[in-house]
Amino acid sequence: MHIDTLLKARWIIPVEPERIVLNDHALAIHGGRIVDILPIAEAEAKYQAASQESFDRHALIPGFVNAHTHAAMSLLRGVADDRPLMEWLVDHIWPLEQKWVGEAFVRDGTDLAMAEMIRGGVTCFNDMYFFPEVTARQVARCGMRAVVGMILIDFPSAWASGPEEYLSKGLALHDELRHNPLVSVAFAPHAPYSVSDEPLLKVRTLAAELDRPIHMHLHETRDEIDQSRQRYGMRPMKWLQQLDFLGPSFVAVHMTQLEDDEIARFAESGGSVVHCPESNLKLASGFCPVAKLIKAGINVAIGTDGAASNNDLDLMGEMRSAALLSKAVANDAAAVPAHTALRMATLNGARALGLESDIGSLEVGKYADITAIRLDELETQPLYDPISNVVYAAGRHQVTDVWVGGRRLLKNRELITLDIDEILQKAAAWREKTLASEQQPS
Amino acid sequence: MHIDTLLKARWIIPVEPERIVLNDHALAIHGGRIVDILPIAEAEAKYQAASQESFDRHALIPGFVNAHTHAAMSLLRGVADDRPLMEWLVDHIWPLEQKWVGEAFVRDGTDLAMAEMIRGGVTCFNDMYFFPEVTARQVARCGMRAVVGMILIDFPSAWASGPEEYLSKGLALHDELRHNPLVSVAFAPHAPYSVSDEPLLKVRTLAAELDRPIHMHLHETRDEIDQSRQRYGMRPMKWLQQLDFLGPSFVAVHMTQLEDDEIARFAESGGSVVHCPESNLKLASGFCPVAKLIKAGINVAIGTDGAASNNDLDLMGEMRSAALLSKAVANDAAAVPAHTALRMATLNGARALGLESDIGSLEVGKYADITAIRLDELETQPLYDPISNVVYAAGRHQVTDVWVGGRRLLKNRELITLDIDEILQKAAAWREKTLASEQQPS
Repeated sequence: MHIDTLLKARWIIPVEPERIVLNDHALAIHGGRIVDILPIAEAEAKYQAASQESFDRHALIPGFVNAHTHAAMSLLRGVADDRPLMEWLVDHIWPLEQKWVGEAFVRDGTDLAMAEMIRGGVTCFNDMYFFPEVTARQVARCGMRAVVGMILIDFPSAWASGPEEYLSKGLALHDELRHNPLVSVAFAPHAPYSVSDEPLLKVRTLAAELDRPIHMHLHETRDEIDQSRQRYGMRPMKWLQQLDFLGPSFVAVHMTQLEDDEIARFAESGGSVVHCPESNLKLASGFCPVAKLIKAGINVAIGTDGAASNNDLDLMGEMRSAALLSKAVANDAAAVPAHTALRMATLNGARALGLESDIGSLEVGKYADITAIRLDELETQPLYDPISNVVYAAGRHQVTDVWVGGRRLLKNRELITLDIDEILQKAAAWREKTLASEQQPS
Repeated sequence: MHIDTLLKARWIIPVEPERIVLNDHALAIHGGRIVDILPIAEAEAKYQAASQESFDRHALIPGFVNAHTHAAMSLLRGVADDRPLMEWLVDHIWPLEQKWVGEAFVRDGTDLAMAEMIRGGVTCFNDMYFFPEVTARQVARCGMRAVVGMILIDFPSAWASGPEEYLSKGLALHDELRHNPLVSVAFAPHAPYSVSDEPLLKVRTLAAELDRPIHMHLHETRDEIDQSRQRYGMRPMKWLQQLDFLGPSFVAVHMTQLEDDEIARFAESGGSVVHCPESNLKLASGFCPVAKLIKAGINVAIGTDGAASNNDLDLMGEMRSAALLSKAVANDAAAVPAHTALRMATLNGARALGLESDIGSLEVGKYADITAIRLDELETQPLYDPISNVVYAAGRHQVTDVWVGGRRLLKNRELITLDIDEILQKAAAWREKTLASEQQPS
C-alpha cells in the first residue's frame, strides 16, 4: 500500500493505551494522519512509503500539549524575577505590556515562543494573549497547532477598548478560523477578579452556542480567594458556579487553592484543570493538589504559563516538575507516576482543549503530531524503562524531530518553518526597547 | 607577563562579590589558579598567554559543586521509580546493591556519573558510597574534583564487614589522599538510623583530630523522626547533639523535617545543610525550609542525591528547582532569588566541604574551576539579566566548556578525559546484568 511516510523507531510510546511501550515498531502516516502502528518488519512488507526514516535510538511519543501559556510574553523572559504575583503583574508586567504590546510584539514574541516550544517537543499550545489574530496567523504560518484565546478582560489594551470590543474581535477571529485545521479558538476570560459578571454571562452563552472551551485563570493565589470573599462574599469558584460557568468545556488554570468539597464539585462539573507547577512555585502562589484532583476523576493537563513567570516554555521540564511536586504535595511517592505525568502532558492536554479525538496520543486516525526523543545520550543511560527516562531523566535538548499533522517542523534539531536568526535578531531588538523603558519609567 | 591561559568572556559571574556581573572581562590563569580578573582590553595589554580563547556568547561562572551524591548509583537510574524511601531502599536498591556493588560497579558508575556531571558544568562533588578508594582513583584519573566519603554503616557490604572495617578502610584512604590536590575525604556515617552510637562516637573523635567534614543524611523523612523517637526517645538531631556530633564541620543532608528551635540550634552549631529538592520531592520525603535556614544564617548548599532517586545529576536543574521550590515553601516569591540560588550551587557547596578558600567563586588565588554557559540560544533570549537566565532559563546542555584547576575537561561539549563510548558500552552491559537480577530475584 502506498503511504506518505513511514517512521521506524526503537520505541513508540503511544500513551493510549497507558503504560505501553512498543519495541521496534513503525508509524504509518498518510494525509497527515496515523494510518497504522505495527512492527517494523511487517510495516516494511505492507507499505511503500514516499519517505521513510529510522529513529533507532529514539522514542516516538505524541507531541506535547502546552495547555496554558501566553506565548508572546517570551519577550519578557526574566525581566522581573523574584516578585509575588500582583507586584509582578501590576508594577512590572502590565506597565511594560501597556507600553509595548501591539501586533509586532505579539508576532515576534509568538515566533520566539513557538521556536522554543517546537525545539522542546511541543506540537500544540493553548494561548491567552492580546492580538490573538496575530498569534493565529503566526501559528498557521509556522505549521504548529494551537488554540488561541479570545481574550476578555475589563481594562482596555492596545487591542480592545473594553469587554464589548474584546468579545466582538474574538468572535470575528472565531469566524475566520472556523475551518482552519491547525488553529481554533477558546473563550479566554482572564480571571474572576479581572472580568465583570456581565461579560462573563455573555461568554457563558456564546461558549455553549459555539461549542468552544472556556480558558480561565482560577484560584491561583490566596489573595484571589480573599479578594473574592470581600467582593462577592464567596470564593471565586463558587461565584463562577452561581453564574453557571462550570462544565465539561471549562478549563481552569492553576487551582492552587482548593478545599475538598470544591474538588468534588469541580469533578462533578466535568471540567479540566491545567497545572502550571513552575509558575506556581516561582510566584509562590501555592500548591495544586494534583493527586487529589486525579483521584476525584478530574482531567489534569500541564502548562508552562508564560516565559515571564517560569522562565521557559519547557513542557518536558514542566512534566517532570509536575510528577515530582505532586508526590511531595500528596505525601505519597507513588502518586503521579511517570506514565501518568506523560499522559497529563499529552492526552489530557488534548482533552482539555476538546481535541482528544484528533491529537494527544499515537493512535490510528489521529493527526501525526509526533515528537522524537533521543535516549542514547549518557544522561538517559542506562535505560531500564523508556517512560521513566523520558519523564525523569531526559532533557528537552534530546528532542530531535517534531511533526504536526505529518509535516516536519524540526529535523535533527533544526527548525524547518521558522527563521531562527531573524527570531534572535528581533528578540535582541525588543530587549533594547524594553530595557530602555524599564530604566526610564514614564 | 607570561601566563598559561587567558579566558575572555562576554560575561563573568564571579559569585563573590554577590550579584555582580562583569561585562567583557577576562580570567587570567596560571599554575592552575586564577591570577587576575580584568577587562579584556587591559588583559590583552598586560598578559602574554600560552593559550587564549574567547567566549563571546557565554557566561563564565564557578564550576558547580554537587554537595551530595552517590555517583556510582547512576547505573541504577530509573530502576525503581515512584516508591517511598524505605520501600525503594529496602525492596529494590539494597538488594541490587548487595548483588552487584563491587569495584567494577563503582568504577563504571562513577565514570558515567562524572561524564554526566562534567557535561552539566559540575566541577566538584561530595560523594557517599561503597569502595570510595575506587571513586577517588577514577576522580583523579578524570581530573575532576571530589570529596569522597569514608562511608560507615552498621550492616556489612561487599566493601566492609562492619563498622570497624569501614572505619579502618576509610582511614587508610584518608592517608593515601593526604596530599592529593583534587580528591580529599570526609567522614560519611550514613544516617542516625543506620549507624550505632559507638562508631558514631569514634567518628566524632577522628573528625576532630583529622579536621575533616562529617557528611550524613539527617531528618530526611518523617518516618526517620518517628523511629528515632521510639528508639532514643528523641528526634535524631537532638540525639546527635547529645553525642556532641554537631559543629562547623557537620554537613547535614536533606533536613526536610525541622522545628524552629532545631533550626536555631543548628545555626548555633555552625554546620551546613545540603538541600536535595528533587530527591525530596520524588521520594515524597518532605520540604526543606530553605528560606528559614538561610535567614537563620545557616550555610545551605545543593545536591542532586544519587541518580537512582532523581533521576539525573543535573545540578543546574537542581539549582532552579531549589530556587522555585523554596519560594513556594516560604510563601514568598522574593525568597531565594536567582543570585542566592547560584551561590548555593557554588560557593556554599565549597564552604560545606571546607574548600571555600580554594573553589566556589571566581576570585584571584582560587583554583580555576570554571564552567562556560552559552546564553545566545533562543531558550535564553532575550537576555535582560545573565544571572536570571543562568538560573531560571538555561539548561545544562548550554554548558560548553569546563575546567578544573585550569585543566580543560569539556571542550565545546566534548569530554576530554573520559571515553564516552566506553562509558556507554559499560552502562549497557550493567543494564543487562541488573535487569536479569531484577526479573529473577534470588
